[in-house]
Amino acid sequence: MRAEIISVGTELLLGQIVDTNAAYLSRILSELGVTIYRRTTIGDNMERLLAALREALDAADVVITIGGLGPTMDDITRDGLATVFEDPLKTDEAYAESLRRFFESRGMPVLDSNLRQALVPVRGRSLPNPHGTAPGLLFETESKAGIALPGPPNEFIPLVDTYVAPYLREKTGNVGTIRSLVLRVAGMGESLVEDRVKDLMQDSNPTVAPYAKLGEVHLRVTANAPTAEEAERLIRERAARVRERLGSAVYGENDDTLEKACVELLTARGRTLSTAESCTGGLVAQRITDIPGSSAVYLGGVVAYSNEAKTDLVGVPDDMIARVGAVSEEVARALAEGARARFGSDYGIGVTGIAGPSGGTLEKPVGLVYLALAHPAGSEVRRFEFHGARPVVRHRASQTVLNMLRLSIIRSGQERG
Amino acid sequence: MRAEIISVGTELLLGQIVDTNAAYLSRILSELGVTIYRRTTIGDNMERLLAALREALDAADVVITIGGLGPTMDDITRDGLATVFEDPLKTDEAYAESLRRFFESRGMPVLDSNLRQALVPVRGRSLPNPHGTAPGLLFETESKAGIALPGPPNEFIPLVDTYVAPYLREKTGNVGTIRSLVLRVAGMGESLVEDRVKDLMQDSNPTVAPYAKLGEVHLRVTANAPTAEEAERLIRERAARVRERLGSAVYGENDDTLEKACVELLTARGRTLSTAESCTGGLVAQRITDIPGSSAVYLGGVVAYSNEAKTDLVGVPDDMIARVGAVSEEVARALAEGARARFGSDYGIGVTGIAGPSGGTLEKPVGLVYLALAHPAGSEVRRFEFHGARPVVRHRASQTVLNMLRLSIIRSGQERG
Repeated sequence: MRAEIISVGTELLLGQIVDTNAAYLSRILSELGVTIYRRTTIGDNMERLLAALREALDAADVVITIGGLGPTMDDITRDGLATVFEDPLKTDEAYAESLRRFFESRGMPVLDSNLRQALVPVRGRSLPNPHGTAPGLLFETESKAGIALPGPPNEFIPLVDTYVAPYLREKTGNVGTIRSLVLRVAGMGESLVEDRVKDLMQDSNPTVAPYAKLGEVHLRVTANAPTAEEAERLIRERAARVRERLGSAVYGENDDTLEKACVELLTARGRTLSTAESCTGGLVAQRITDIPGSSAVYLGGVVAYSNEAKTDLVGVPDDMIARVGAVSEEVARALAEGARARFGSDYGIGVTGIAGPSGGTLEKPVGLVYLALAHPAGSEVRRFEFHGARPVVRHRASQTVLNMLRLSIIRSGQERG
Repeated sequence: MRAEIISVGTELLLGQIVDTNAAYLSRILSELGVTIYRRTTIGDNMERLLAALREALDAADVVITIGGLGPTMDDITRDGLATVFEDPLKTDEAYAESLRRFFESRGMPVLDSNLRQALVPVRGRSLPNPHGTAPGLLFETESKAGIALPGPPNEFIPLVDTYVAPYLREKTGNVGTIRSLVLRVAGMGESLVEDRVKDLMQDSNPTVAPYAKLGEVHLRVTANAPTAEEAERLIRERAARVRERLGSAVYGENDDTLEKACVELLTARGRTLSTAESCTGGLVAQRITDIPGSSAVYLGGVVAYSNEAKTDLVGVPDDMIARVGAVSEEVARALAEGARARFGSDYGIGVTGIAGPSGGTLEKPVGLVYLALAHPAGSEVRRFEFHGARPVVRHRASQTVLNMLRLSIIRSGQERG
């Protein structure tokens, strides 16, 4: 099966946004064994859209469009596909009604343009989009298919996963498959990771390739096999060998995050957490609470930005800040222990530092961060000098302290075990 | 002048990497006033490359290829362009010699394949690449040009800046520059925004186009003029008219964020802020503290995830939670007022809701969020039902409450003024 992808949008064509959707879809298609011949980007122009659609349908069995399904006059994809598939649009009355209710519940007027999003092909069908107001659309003839997907990634990706991948899997009968798995590594630099798995990187199937990310390293393991099962088996075997080399530095797979690893470990051990953050300003709390189910293990936190808040809310001694400064090992420890005492949690995280761009001195430069973890057996503090802009310093600090928490929970389990 | 961009590479086509080069080049071309009709991505396949090159040369004056200039058999761009421009390749002996020295100085063998990178067109010329071993190549006929650029961004971008932009500027006689400006709008849906500026969207210079983003709308104003100054003037004039229509819903321009607008307003008015968050779990605090200088206006916050934390840290009455539940108008107001009292700030933000995916009931569904703002003159609470996954609900909640803060500060200034 051959597919072409057409991204529609002047802001894509002018380079104002980068087309991450097309890359995502391409990966999914290649994993399904669907051959991609070409990917095209055009602006919001009906004549060029029609030309691109016709060319793509000449060459490919399936054409997938990205974007151009909004309510405005610029949004031409719906009409373009209806034209080339000779499948006129009609209003889906039930969906139009739900759109009216949606806007009314928000106290917003329902404009005629909004109701364009209820237009669906007469012979084709719509693909429900729970994350937005524009459904995906499927057009079909005996030999060809056209699929229109909305552009916002938070709508696009679930539609690809829920409808497009299963639809194509059924169509292709799924012969010949590429599978890949990402192992996520924290607390170990790219060179050291590479050094540990260098021999495994020589093989061509499965391949093992490291990618340096902000505050972590990803190792992508990719296998090619006649069946998905065989590809999965190859990957699992190779991933197990990588894990042997890297030990607990591997914290997860694919879309796992350090915060997810922490919440899962806390949940499994029945332990609780609280936070007291200065320079990360709630970033650690926000990452933890981004994980569904975190409310069972995360009791709460304090963003102690001012010295008064550090003293008043977390009990950092007034004279300690006067003596050693707010950015110090002592204050980091007092924040972690104060949070733990205040919230009555098993673990307490404390962060203090200078995220920049201003506020640095020769002795305490921008990027200096103290990270503390209080736990049932005591507390630990580590000193870092992170390089980069304010968001980078903050991200690295949150990444590192979450990894300290993760490793501490793992160690405590081993000691008890 | 019309241009097309062809990105060459199987790893692009399979979505293993995202094509940031094409976006960069597109931006540069549009700033030069070069019209881009289409952008195409193809794999490392000579037949398809030749087809894409011929199609592009039919439609455009200049075709720029990205990638496929490496030393391996996969790297077909050089030969493809030589074929369609009927301009055979010859070895640049001086460059071949420098390649030999380069590899020898690194103690690496010089393979014949490496020397393919010294092949240059007989009539055309090479574009020196100080950051890599593959130079760019320029092919020309009387009416058309083809430019081949290497794929690594650290080689690609300098070649665009150093050779491609000046070459095209000379070719176009620099008639026409495109400039654009994004106006960022909060608290108003895409359709309503469009309704207000519909007539301005009819004009072709400057153009005005709306884009729906998560929790906000961007209006892009783009002007085409003989000089950059004239383009800027057209944009400013049109942006002023858009602002008249949308009033305070426009919160910023280009890369501005709502949190930046809030910190700037608080700083200008000498006002301070604190937060008490439940379902956003520190996201509001994190966004505010992401802005340099926020420490002067943000006193701190509490992530009151458990009911005990709401009572103990922010003073939400125990019996209130028992009576109306933690997700309620009353508790939202108590959080905002409690934060304001606790930190002694001018403004207090309170957030409580159900971010999902679990925890919803018929009466209080997932996505239900109460947003409260306490300020010197009293307090306000608003109720929302946000749709989407947990991170989307949390983002929309933070976006909306920051906008409440922003509008409240603006109003208080107007009342005082």
